[in-house]
Amino acid sequence: MEIGKVEQEEIEARVKRLQARLVQEGVDAFLVTQHVDLYYFTGSMQAGYAFIPAEGEPVFYVRRSIERAGLESAIAVEAMSSMRGFRAQLAAGHPSVFGGDRPAGKPIAIATEMDVLPAAAFAKLAEVIAGGQTGCALVDGSALVRGVRMIKSPWEIGRIEAAAAVAAEALTASLPIVKEGLTELELLARIEYEIRIRGHIGVMRTRSYNMEIMTGMLGSGSAAAIPSAFDGPAGGLGLGPSVPQSASRKPIRRNEPILIDIGCCIDGYVIDQTRTAVIGSLPDELAAAYAVAERIIRHAERLMAPGTACDAIYAASLADAAAAGLADHFMGHGINQVKFLGHGIGLEVDEWPVLARGFGNPLEPGMVIAVEPKFTFPGSGVVGIENSYLVTDAGCRPLTRSPEGLIVL
Amino acid sequence: MEIGKVEQEEIEARVKRLQARLVQEGVDAFLVTQHVDLYYFTGSMQAGYAFIPAEGEPVFYVRRSIERAGLESAIAVEAMSSMRGFRAQLAAGHPSVFGGDRPAGKPIAIATEMDVLPAAAFAKLAEVIAGGQTGCALVDGSALVRGVRMIKSPWEIGRIEAAAAVAAEALTASLPIVKEGLTELELLARIEYEIRIRGHIGVMRTRSYNMEIMTGMLGSGSAAAIPSAFDGPAGGLGLGPSVPQSASRKPIRRNEPILIDIGCCIDGYVIDQTRTAVIGSLPDELAAAYAVAERIIRHAERLMAPGTACDAIYAASLADAAAAGLADHFMGHGINQVKFLGHGIGLEVDEWPVLARGFGNPLEPGMVIAVEPKFTFPGSGVVGIENSYLVTDAGCRPLTRSPEGLIVL
Repeated sequence: MEIGKVEQEEIEARVKRLQARLVQEGVDAFLVTQHVDLYYFTGSMQAGYAFIPAEGEPVFYVRRSIERAGLESAIAVEAMSSMRGFRAQLAAGHPSVFGGDRPAGKPIAIATEMDVLPAAAFAKLAEVIAGGQTGCALVDGSALVRGVRMIKSPWEIGRIEAAAAVAAEALTASLPIVKEGLTELELLARIEYEIRIRGHIGVMRTRSYNMEIMTGMLGSGSAAAIPSAFDGPAGGLGLGPSVPQSASRKPIRRNEPILIDIGCCIDGYVIDQTRTAVIGSLPDELAAAYAVAERIIRHAERLMAPGTACDAIYAASLADAAAAGLADHFMGHGINQVKFLGHGIGLEVDEWPVLARGFGNPLEPGMVIAVEPKFTFPGSGVVGIENSYLVTDAGCRPLTRSPEGLIVL
Repeated sequence: MEIGKVEQEEIEARVKRLQARLVQEGVDAFLVTQHVDLYYFTGSMQAGYAFIPAEGEPVFYVRRSIERAGLESAIAVEAMSSMRGFRAQLAAGHPSVFGGDRPAGKPIAIATEMDVLPAAAFAKLAEVIAGGQTGCALVDGSALVRGVRMIKSPWEIGRIEAAAAVAAEALTASLPIVKEGLTELELLARIEYEIRIRGHIGVMRTRSYNMEIMTGMLGSGSAAAIPSAFDGPAGGLGLGPSVPQSASRKPIRRNEPILIDIGCCIDGYVIDQTRTAVIGSLPDELAAAYAVAERIIRHAERLMAPGTACDAIYAASLADAAAAGLADHFMGHGINQVKFLGHGIGLEVDEWPVLARGFGNPLEPGMVIAVEPKFTFPGSGVVGIENSYLVTDAGCRPLTRSPEGLIVL
């Protein structure tokens, strides 16, 4: 029985990139608390905290399992003392942060993930880290981590490609069961089975508070167009108010769009993709809208290159939708429209960058972005397409493997 | 297409119980932020905040979808203004909390879920709620919510029983595929499929930071006994360091225990259960340990009645394990032992109460508790049993439906 391992150089490069950002921002260290971030910076997801000083060696302080962390982690592992003793343990291990070399009176700033760490745990950690003294504060490092994780290494891109291959195979294996009367839930259950036996980890990880993904969004006809809390262009009816999104028990009918927005997660990395299928043929209005979605994604492909601002790609998609007379149906309908065209993917589904207004940052090589133009017609359904792309020096390269085009069953 | 609804009286009773606790604790209101708590107190999981004053009418302030919240919610729904305008909206709607009737100088305390709400979101909300004035603070109400949710209504117990029925059916439907060489992942994928087509919502919700459940823990032989970060008696090898728990690609072999700790979630409510299976027969030591696990659960059943302290049940299980000479193997092995025998279940898998040291609170009618005595033998496997029980006036009643006893295949 082998415990897998992320390569040493891979982790070292990630830590170095974070350290460079810490130096740039004048932050003394990063205290990593979230399991996904721990995996990213150590190679291990065991329970504990990783302490990454701006300068010097990082240490993974492990609560459990220490044996397993020792096998998995690419950075030094140390059994964590009690919470009460943690400040002393950190101070002993990281004199560059806590030691006497520091200019007298210079406050210590330690960043952590305030976007995910619960308020009570944050308050407790802040108290422990301060150790009863002023001059040592926990500050928000969410943007630092998200910024570092936004640029994927070749190894990470390989993992996303592996996920893309599984998603494509699973879709091909599942489509033959679609027939009139099959419920959305039956189709989704089959796709989930097909990704799972190929190594899907069983969950789609998200970073946003309250955001859940039931593997993805599968919806047909009017059920797909029902609005929901989910921050995406299509919500779905779901199985009831306790799971008010994605597949329902509605049977799939002829001549209505079946939106299949299903990814998977292999080795921790997700792929996100959408295909539209139909038994028979789409009503004219929806067929036309589907064609516009393909035009928008072609346009986005031409724009996606290093230097292009994220919001420029979103603006282009809005203009394309408006030119087609579909502004009111783009990315949801009416007050339920969402205000983005695409989002980064990686270890989580909702990574940076976001192709949306207000995101003026330029694309950079190594970003991986899911682009998902969709059109919602209340009462009729949702049509659209979603591919995930790697931004390269030359432009962009699709990672999604499923054939494009409306799937006619 | 029907949007399901939790009964009005059900929600009203929950709100009333929370309000009684608020009055008791001298807290002026509760601001509900987490999607599961929103579902519990409104009947809807749409995005927004529910404001429940200690006295007066609660309101669900909805960001999206307002139409859907209107159909689902049992309390009044109002479209939420911008975050900036939220304080004014709250003040206008809840004069008993913010109004001039208040004794001058009396500070306002508003509770929220600091155990799950991220630190950054908490800080932002605290600032908005204070509205630039002193004398209005957000305080931790995690224990209030967990305390109210700990006692289940007859309606909730019905949901958990529905989940128990699905888990039992799915196990029965899946076991026939078990044969030598089938991988843990293949068996888990099949069970997941069987619960999913019966209405499992697709995720097992947890409250604890960083806690994930890949539907449950399925592990065979030595792979099941590998320690992990997961706060349970068995971790499992998993599919790699990015998912270091539960099923692996290890093939199932003859004469080794197969631990099947799989629940499901129906209408938002989970069941948790464990059965041990084997192809052939267990080694003597493990067979003996399995028998002790059954003895411990029988003992727990006799103890579980209103008034018994939670930690007394845990202490009894420790004593039983020690008397059998199995203290070192109980609930994990060596330094990886976990310090509890059982835990509450409901909308989340990790609810109150906990059968553990330090939990001196007495059992009360309406609690639902998963009791899971297990023994870990490194290199050989994990054996045990887990049933979920309702605490009644008369004692306890099992909700789990799967037949007991070692499953010999």
